[in-house]
Amino acid sequence: MDIVKVHRKPGLNIVKVGGQIIEDRVMLNVLLERFAQMEGHKILVHGGGKRATEIEGKLGLESKVYKGRRITSGESLEVVVMVYAGLLNKTIVAGLQAKNCNAIGLCGADGNTILAHKRPVGEVDFGFVGDIEQVNPRPISLLIKNEITPVFCALTHNGKGQLLNTNADTIASELAVGLSGTFEVSLLYCFEKKGVLSNMEEADSIIRKIDKNSYNQLLEQQIIGDGMLPKLHNCFNALEAGVHKVCIGDIGMLQQDAEEYTTITL
Amino acid sequence: MDIVKVHRKPGLNIVKVGGQIIEDRVMLNVLLERFAQMEGHKILVHGGGKRATEIEGKLGLESKVYKGRRITSGESLEVVVMVYAGLLNKTIVAGLQAKNCNAIGLCGADGNTILAHKRPVGEVDFGFVGDIEQVNPRPISLLIKNEITPVFCALTHNGKGQLLNTNADTIASELAVGLSGTFEVSLLYCFEKKGVLSNMEEADSIIRKIDKNSYNQLLEQQIIGDGMLPKLHNCFNALEAGVHKVCIGDIGMLQQDAEEYTTITL
Repeated sequence: MDIVKVHRKPGLNIVKVGGQIIEDRVMLNVLLERFAQMEGHKILVHGGGKRATEIEGKLGLESKVYKGRRITSGESLEVVVMVYAGLLNKTIVAGLQAKNCNAIGLCGADGNTILAHKRPVGEVDFGFVGDIEQVNPRPISLLIKNEITPVFCALTHNGKGQLLNTNADTIASELAVGLSGTFEVSLLYCFEKKGVLSNMEEADSIIRKIDKNSYNQLLEQQIIGDGMLPKLHNCFNALEAGVHKVCIGDIGMLQQDAEEYTTITL
Repeated sequence: MDIVKVHRKPGLNIVKVGGQIIEDRVMLNVLLERFAQMEGHKILVHGGGKRATEIEGKLGLESKVYKGRRITSGESLEVVVMVYAGLLNKTIVAGLQAKNCNAIGLCGADGNTILAHKRPVGEVDFGFVGDIEQVNPRPISLLIKNEITPVFCALTHNGKGQLLNTNADTIASELAVGLSGTFEVSLLYCFEKKGVLSNMEEADSIIRKIDKNSYNQLLEQQIIGDGMLPKLHNCFNALEAGVHKVCIGDIGMLQQDAEEYTTITL
């Protein structure tokens, strides 16, 4: 009898957590507790735009937004760097350390992990906003394999000294793709709702499974809201590029016996 | 003839750079250029109190100081974390990346690298200020040996979720001591003067060498200024704990053929 040796890649959970969870002290504590308890290799990616807007206000700066997306002026970038890479990232790292998770806070400039370029000026100039060019898996794998857990904030750099504000959902999916050569990656989008809902008015109307076919049907029936579209777009991109599994749900999704969330498949 | 094999530890330069250099765009660029060009293993440690005081002012907070040292209230800690770990640290990291130095920005909570406790309340309550308990050399060595250059800001944590504002000179000397078991460490204190001066009015009156004997003489003759005393105290502590070499000087000290700076020996 021939013995076929199946060479399986080690698992890696990448959890992206939204600003509404990060910026609520109680919710953040629950999240960090659950995340710290997750077994195996893991990465946390966080946003935090609301807090940045609040600090901008205190500094007398005006937050400019175009179609729900921040326009990042030079002054705005300084605030974003302070809030994302400083206040939020280090509060999360210190919180995880207290729960015996050996976390390390990173932006894309750290270890040259995520290279991006400034988004070209089109209909509107988004300022210092980065579109990702490349994830460098080597330094990230080095940390993970030594049981150090990366915590990424939503910043990248262009390799020429410029930091760039970058969408946290996209950072999570690009990390998932970039690391899927080395790991079997599960990408978990964690936000305040239980999953993708078939009725926005009903918190429990979770669509358990979405594949490309049902996605197109949901689009035609206009069941999926505008806010969810770019998220789902990111999910399918990640799956097509070799990510093993993508899920959307609330903090409960991080528990081992979780059932109520949305799984995206091709 | 017997061959004696001398097992030498690899060298490591730890450069501590003061706020006056970091906060001046031109000087910072020169520093990063010189630091990036330094050969071999290296670590950068930076302060940045002046910028934190400036942002505090913009946010309408009052900076409290006792005998030249910041009192760190809860609100003040948030600003310090934003400025040190966010704005200054990531600006430095992105700047080094642009000069082909693969830097990674860290505070003491990252990778659990530097543990401290809140300074006990004595004559005055310094607030969220940390006195260092322990440096964990393992994660730092891991990065260095993989040619990733740590850039430390002046923050530590207590392992229970609390970040603590910590003197950057002390962080540099404790890192030097903590890593001297693995590396032959040179500790370079880089500031705006050319070294320890015998006459504060003359920028070129550099004392080239100070040992414990000449230090006591300089103290008796009241030649060393108050600002230099804790720095020199740190230097002798580091040397006594196994650090190979300690020097004090300006940016020029980082060049290979540098001559004009102060060397401290036991």
